[in-house]
Amino acid sequence: MDWLILAPISGIISMIAAGYLYYWVVYRNTDTEKMREVGGAIEEGASAYLRRLYQALGGVVFIVGIILLVAVGWQNAIAYIVGSICSAFAGYLGMRVALKGNSRTAYAAHYGLNRAFSVSFFAGSVMGLSMVGLALLGISIFYYIFKDPHIVLSFSLGASSLALLAKAGGGIYTKTADIGADLVGKVEMDLAEDDPRNPAVVADNVGDNVGDVAGMGADLFDSYVASVVAAMILGAALFQLDWVILPMVLSAAGILAALLGMLLVRTREGENPGKALNRGTIFTAVFFTVLSFLVVRLMGASMGLFWATFAGMAAGVVIGFTSDYFTSTEQVAVQRTAEVSKTGSAITIITGFSYGLLSIVPSIVGICIATLASWYVAEYFGVPGVYGVSLAAVGMLALSGMVVSADAYGPIVDNAKGVAEQSGMSKEVIDIADELDAAGNTAKAITKGFAIGAAALTVLALFQAYTETAGIEGLNMLTPPVIVGIFLGAMMPPLFSALLMLSVGKNAFAMVNEVRRQFREIPGLMAGTARPDYRTCVDIAAKGALRELIVPGGLAMLSPVLVGVILGKAALGAFLGGSIFTGIIFALLMANAGGLWDNAKKLIESGAHGGKGSEAHKAAVVGDTVGDPFKDTAGPSINTLITVMSLVATVIAPFIGQGLLG
Amino acid sequence: MDWLILAPISGIISMIAAGYLYYWVVYRNTDTEKMREVGGAIEEGASAYLRRLYQALGGVVFIVGIILLVAVGWQNAIAYIVGSICSAFAGYLGMRVALKGNSRTAYAAHYGLNRAFSVSFFAGSVMGLSMVGLALLGISIFYYIFKDPHIVLSFSLGASSLALLAKAGGGIYTKTADIGADLVGKVEMDLAEDDPRNPAVVADNVGDNVGDVAGMGADLFDSYVASVVAAMILGAALFQLDWVILPMVLSAAGILAALLGMLLVRTREGENPGKALNRGTIFTAVFFTVLSFLVVRLMGASMGLFWATFAGMAAGVVIGFTSDYFTSTEQVAVQRTAEVSKTGSAITIITGFSYGLLSIVPSIVGICIATLASWYVAEYFGVPGVYGVSLAAVGMLALSGMVVSADAYGPIVDNAKGVAEQSGMSKEVIDIADELDAAGNTAKAITKGFAIGAAALTVLALFQAYTETAGIEGLNMLTPPVIVGIFLGAMMPPLFSALLMLSVGKNAFAMVNEVRRQFREIPGLMAGTARPDYRTCVDIAAKGALRELIVPGGLAMLSPVLVGVILGKAALGAFLGGSIFTGIIFALLMANAGGLWDNAKKLIESGAHGGKGSEAHKAAVVGDTVGDPFKDTAGPSINTLITVMSLVATVIAPFIGQGLLG
Repeated sequence: MDWLILAPISGIISMIAAGYLYYWVVYRNTDTEKMREVGGAIEEGASAYLRRLYQALGGVVFIVGIILLVAVGWQNAIAYIVGSICSAFAGYLGMRVALKGNSRTAYAAHYGLNRAFSVSFFAGSVMGLSMVGLALLGISIFYYIFKDPHIVLSFSLGASSLALLAKAGGGIYTKTADIGADLVGKVEMDLAEDDPRNPAVVADNVGDNVGDVAGMGADLFDSYVASVVAAMILGAALFQLDWVILPMVLSAAGILAALLGMLLVRTREGENPGKALNRGTIFTAVFFTVLSFLVVRLMGASMGLFWATFAGMAAGVVIGFTSDYFTSTEQVAVQRTAEVSKTGSAITIITGFSYGLLSIVPSIVGICIATLASWYVAEYFGVPGVYGVSLAAVGMLALSGMVVSADAYGPIVDNAKGVAEQSGMSKEVIDIADELDAAGNTAKAITKGFAIGAAALTVLALFQAYTETAGIEGLNMLTPPVIVGIFLGAMMPPLFSALLMLSVGKNAFAMVNEVRRQFREIPGLMAGTARPDYRTCVDIAAKGALRELIVPGGLAMLSPVLVGVILGKAALGAFLGGSIFTGIIFALLMANAGGLWDNAKKLIESGAHGGKGSEAHKAAVVGDTVGDPFKDTAGPSINTLITVMSLVATVIAPFIGQGLLG
Repeated sequence: MDWLILAPISGIISMIAAGYLYYWVVYRNTDTEKMREVGGAIEEGASAYLRRLYQALGGVVFIVGIILLVAVGWQNAIAYIVGSICSAFAGYLGMRVALKGNSRTAYAAHYGLNRAFSVSFFAGSVMGLSMVGLALLGISIFYYIFKDPHIVLSFSLGASSLALLAKAGGGIYTKTADIGADLVGKVEMDLAEDDPRNPAVVADNVGDNVGDVAGMGADLFDSYVASVVAAMILGAALFQLDWVILPMVLSAAGILAALLGMLLVRTREGENPGKALNRGTIFTAVFFTVLSFLVVRLMGASMGLFWATFAGMAAGVVIGFTSDYFTSTEQVAVQRTAEVSKTGSAITIITGFSYGLLSIVPSIVGICIATLASWYVAEYFGVPGVYGVSLAAVGMLALSGMVVSADAYGPIVDNAKGVAEQSGMSKEVIDIADELDAAGNTAKAITKGFAIGAAALTVLALFQAYTETAGIEGLNMLTPPVIVGIFLGAMMPPLFSALLMLSVGKNAFAMVNEVRRQFREIPGLMAGTARPDYRTCVDIAAKGALRELIVPGGLAMLSPVLVGVILGKAALGAFLGGSIFTGIIFALLMANAGGLWDNAKKLIESGAHGGKGSEAHKAAVVGDTVGDPFKDTAGPSINTLITVMSLVATVIAPFIGQGLLG
């Protein structure tokens, strides 16, 4: 039987399901004129930004495509371009439906929680399903045509490099807008979140969509593709045709499991929507376990392959759920951070940052256990451990269809709340939107941990795929090329984060000044008799984001080339290794510290330690503002950075030699 | 000729010079009753803390000594205990003279800048000279007696483990006191720095001494000893007796160079004292170059050994002077951070943190170049590269006598300023104290970069010494024990930092409440008619610091044992490697971000962006407060952490096997 055919088939099924849900969401009612107006402004701003972004990135893709055409071959150039188009399309589609979902969720809230939850979750599912469908379809078609995993690698590079730029750009955009809206509007002028008198409010809402939805989708899209490709390359290097095909078949099983799992995501009357989302994730994991067992058994492959896959998936679920610990308002980290806010913002920062550092520990231990378990369980069954680790990454990411859906739900309900407030809906409706939003934050914490764990295993597999492709037998940490390579690689994630965050600081500075100017110069703005100039704020965020992308983007793409050419292939391998170790540490630190400060603020806003307007609240707002670029700009881009660097290295691996340090 | 005899001789010369300068400083005049009173309170508080600290640490040293006696041998137990006593003694002596130096510098300022500068620099020199003298004397005596570098290793472990606890404890103490004094006294009550009405002011001044002087001395003491020992062990492993002795002889040359260099540290009329300090460092480097060339030539050893030593020393000087870039008020990083403070503290934090991340780059590149240069220059002359790297560390640290003197000068003049203000001296005197203080801050920035660079090369050499001792041929980064070892090791510096900073947060919270209580409950405190209760504040800082040491201290000593026993010797090697890479990154980040925020605040206080009391100033104070535990608690302890872990691993190396991961 041609097992491979399952991959494009389930890809197509996934796309069809996504298409059906898209139209289902679009045909919900949006009703009121006011809502259409508010939603329309956000949609317009988001489309304008995306158009600009994709125009700019089109040029980059074209240039890299030409380089690949000349240096590697036309097949790789095409695969690269198609990969980047698929990634852009998945991001675009997700954002469109998220924008449609915002106002429709707000409207559906008139009919109660259950209806509103369905609209928002299905809108999120369009993102999840189209992403995994498109990815698996692309991978399997390129494999069908060329039968060469190294050409699929270029597809992956296309997807990842676009994801990196979309994510970093979106991250800069969203935080520029957010800081502008918060610091002036909320802190200085005492406006509520999403108050339409705030000139930066539209930019802020646009940012939530371009940063969170398009960005997060692109992030898991690229890990998803990269994990499958890494396993395929390792399978090919081990001369096992079955092992080249298996990752794609397992991903197909993952899509079916996600579709089944989604059917269980419904809120019963009075149930917390967060529970429904978690139920979907858990059952998707159960279904995937059964399906992957059947696949391995029926393909007649070693059961070690099943257990390695299972180890990865189980670790992903555990990392996801435990990463909630440091960001939950019910645990000590957030509570303590909220409490010390009474002594002022400096101690809020120190405490939150320290807990962020602590939060690294459980995830790192989880990643270590997943690595060891998948390696040794594979070896126990006679499968090379390195292939086992790559399947663990595939197993973790097989749940992506469901995970991305739950994640995309977050910004949709966040914005639905915004739409409800801005268009002056009743308190009951806003309360429902609030409840949906709270569930979204929990889901987000879980999927962020999951995304980092998955990226970690994926880049470990890619790291091995690079060394296989470069023909490296071992990387001895006691030799200078390896020591220097690790140092330089370890330096990249902090350097990249610094560049992105300085961009946010620079842009936000301009935005704050513009918002202050509008409050000062537009008469009647505070009274609500004049409209603010939303467009200028949107423009500052967008132009700044694109301009600031050039240096970090170039760094990600060129640094592996430079290290490889100058210092040689062993140093490049060590460079990738070094970037993985610090990359994961900084990604966890930033995601968790950011989430923690956010929730400490929310805890105070819910009435603790003096509630809104107290000194503790002011300190917590500072913490939240510092955390924003941590968790939404730098943190999530680091995953993609290390994936892109690994992919670039693997693509150029056959062409680089011993360099100066040979 | 017995070259080795130079080591104890120059050790003794150094001690004699230190003793002479000590009495020279002590016999300066302290004059006014008021000054004696203020200085006396600080001295009393500091002595009380140190007594408590050493009592507590005495117990720890005794227990570890017993373990070494049983597990390794009585020679090692004695070496360990003597090492820790030497380290404690160097710290104690330095602090005593610093305390004497404070008020004497303030008094000497009546007679002009030059006199005051001499008093403060000579007081600092007592620290520098006694430290290197004691270290080299200890090393060479143990080597004379036992002729075994592995016993000298236990001496090093004693010095480092005591340094770790003294440094971490001092770091917690000083920042607890500092935050308490600043947040309530300066921000809430609008008192000036060192205002005697502030209940935490004595604790704060004590902290400057126990944290900065005793801590910094202990830090370079342990790197100094460890670098010499690592080179000796590698020399012995290569069966070259000359190479065992050479590191001690080079260190002897370093002491003589430092003594010569110090003679040039005098301010000419109207000269900036910072220039005089830098002149001393540069000329010490020049003298050392000449002396080390002569030593290698006259000993008849390979010139590769000279060039490797020179490469390390030159890299140290370059790293030291460039690390000033990110913390200098004349450069973009500090200026930009000060400027964005106008938009509030959140952007101050984001910007400073981002520049802190960027600041990693030049130092890492410098360390890479030093590693490559010393490795390949040694190999070019037929000396194994690994020994070349260890000599580079020795070369860097050979300047320690001068570097520590310049560094210890900083807190002395800082406190002299405090004494001058508290005892109500004239404006001219306070201005001179101010000028001395500014030079101290520059010197501190340079020596911090230097300390981190030296620690990096030292731990790289120790890492190699561990693998030689454990009989490890290579550490392949593609195998699971190494991958997992690196992950776990990489996790340690952030974990350790988190524990220390949470301790500061917790202690500072208690301190802030106590200071607020005193202002509220002691009538006449603000009017200056009642004295605050200094002692309670001193007690809160001291007790908290000791209590909070237990977990991080235990972690540092036990984690290498656990990793070695459970995961095996390869994983332990990788664990050390991982801790070095992230350790250096976090140490640089924290030291530089902290220094940068400090100077951004000072820049504003000098009149920029609205000056003292402006909104920008308030934001910058928050940045400075966040930076304090970064630069004075967590950052400098990380060096010592990775040294201690490497030493523990090397001591236990002969006893551990393959573990579970074989």
